Amino acid sequence: MSSAVSSTSELDAPELLRRHGEALAGFFATLEKRFPKAPDRLMESIQYSLTAGGKRLRPALVLECWRACSSPKQPGAPSGNGRSRGTGGTERWPSDHPSYPSALAAAAAIELIHTFSLVHDDLPAMDDDDLRRGRPTNHKVFGEAMAILAGDAMVTMAFEIIAADADPSVAPALIRELASASGPEGMIGGQVLDIASENVSLKLQELQQLHRMKTGALLTAACRLGGIAAGADRASLNAVTAFGQHMGLAFQIIDDLLDVTSTPEQLGKATRKDANKGKNTYPSLLGLEASRKEADAQLALAMTSLDVLGDSAQTLRMLARFVVQRDK
Amino acid sequence: MSSAVSSTSELDAPELLRRHGEALAGFFATLEKRFPKAPDRLMESIQYSLTAGGKRLRPALVLECWRACSSPKQPGAPSGNGRSRGTGGTERWPSDHPSYPSALAAAAAIELIHTFSLVHDDLPAMDDDDLRRGRPTNHKVFGEAMAILAGDAMVTMAFEIIAADADPSVAPALIRELASASGPEGMIGGQVLDIASENVSLKLQELQQLHRMKTGALLTAACRLGGIAAGADRASLNAVTAFGQHMGLAFQIIDDLLDVTSTPEQLGKATRKDANKGKNTYPSLLGLEASRKEADAQLALAMTSLDVLGDSAQTLRMLARFVVQRDK
Repeated sequence: MSSAVSSTSELDAPELLRRHGEALAGFFATLEKRFPKAPDRLMESIQYSLTAGGKRLRPALVLECWRACSSPKQPGAPSGNGRSRGTGGTERWPSDHPSYPSALAAAAAIELIHTFSLVHDDLPAMDDDDLRRGRPTNHKVFGEAMAILAGDAMVTMAFEIIAADADPSVAPALIRELASASGPEGMIGGQVLDIASENVSLKLQELQQLHRMKTGALLTAACRLGGIAAGADRASLNAVTAFGQHMGLAFQIIDDLLDVTSTPEQLGKATRKDANKGKNTYPSLLGLEASRKEADAQLALAMTSLDVLGDSAQTLRMLARFVVQRDK
Repeated sequence: MSSAVSSTSELDAPELLRRHGEALAGFFATLEKRFPKAPDRLMESIQYSLTAGGKRLRPALVLECWRACSSPKQPGAPSGNGRSRGTGGTERWPSDHPSYPSALAAAAAIELIHTFSLVHDDLPAMDDDDLRRGRPTNHKVFGEAMAILAGDAMVTMAFEIIAADADPSVAPALIRELASASGPEGMIGGQVLDIASENVSLKLQELQQLHRMKTGALLTAACRLGGIAAGADRASLNAVTAFGQHMGLAFQIIDDLLDVTSTPEQLGKATRKDANKGKNTYPSLLGLEASRKEADAQLALAMTSLDVLGDSAQTLRMLARFVVQRDK
């Protein structure tokens, strides 16, 4: 796969995300071939949302955690600093690594799950949004019925792709991880809590629990999927798990802040939605200043979590800084 | 598991389905323990639809195909005629069989997928139904947002349960089978075609393709999941696959006929829906008489498919006859 990231030593985060985004786009371009009997209009609806140009943060976390956790002793195995690279050569790495197909399948699957959640969250019965990533939302273009079905299909496709592509020795663990983070105790459960808590005042602890489920679970799962695909040892898996938890919380605080401080043009979606819907947010509970400080504190904890991984986690540190410094 | 089916030699199909339904109900009663952090209201919504009292045909097909395909040479292995049973004894069989957890997980998962599809199909943006299995539909009780999220959660739970409970040697194949039958080339794709073809005249061949996807794929998958869980050889897996295809088509023809000939009280859901919505059906294309004959022809083909399995497929034959003779 020519678009796979072959060297990271001189990349900044936007360029790294762009390259991972290209690898993902290459994968998603094969979906019609993988599902040839699917109705054309359904695949159009799915592709419309998949290729709407998100940051691809979750797949990037899968692939960079996979890389950080892969042993540099294996032939062609990745290393983080670009100096102690194995025998694979820069062009051929990492797509020739034996566990790369497992990591790529997990990366594609988590982006499918993330995108499904956006399509369903935007529905009239849910957040009723007209704009997503600067374009009309899926149901505005394809109708509500198709948007519901496209979201449903993205979930089954995510699990089918892992079951088909990932090494059988890690596939059940990858599927269990992704399903658990997406399901009633994770993202979907968090969405239920979010809807239930509109116009209800939450305590900080309750807000944290809501965010841990609604966005944190999937971001943490992204990191763990990479570790699982790499066959990480317990210490490495614990490291990327803690990293994912702290970085996920920082991500959500920044999301809340951007909803207050940005314009719709900057974000590509409606802003001030939280206040308009009576949603609890970090700024509404703590104020802008203290929220920014809490995001920085979570970033520091995320960085510390990576110590055990040494130099091989350089790109993860870069991604975490980007998450907190982003302006959209 | 005391409710597991321990003997089938003197059962009729309703009693067999009732017993499998009990085993399923026992499994579903543990969902709150499996997902302790899920919001209560979400689990209520899920349980409302899961325990609404369907026929449990798909899980019964999983478990009976598993049984028919399991080698009688294994300790405690099932056999179909109740005479050549292994060493397990009637009370202990089949829940003590080594591959039973894989089959039960697949049975629970396919019922979760089937139920999710009913909840989403009933939504106002889809078929807009108020009545299902004699009770108000999920969104009528819990609201549209919760019905969407409950359906979504049932999908992730289905795959999580297989990944967690099934033997790792068969889990990826089970997940791939279930996802493929549910997704854009199966049930969900069929629903897209169904909506697209309202008020459009289909040819018989197009109607068959629609039904193969919308209902046939999942019924066939039920049979194949049982075979895969049992570690079936190619001949046995081919047999239950062909059985599932023919029985699935017969099932759909009867479904179409019942929509015309039954009352809402008999079916527990609205009738004459097909004609009211301008849907293509077997009766509308072939007439009542020819449709009934076609169902009987498909039943005969389903029966022939089972020849290779001999006596061990007796309960499958009984289930197939029940499918064609049922009045609801």
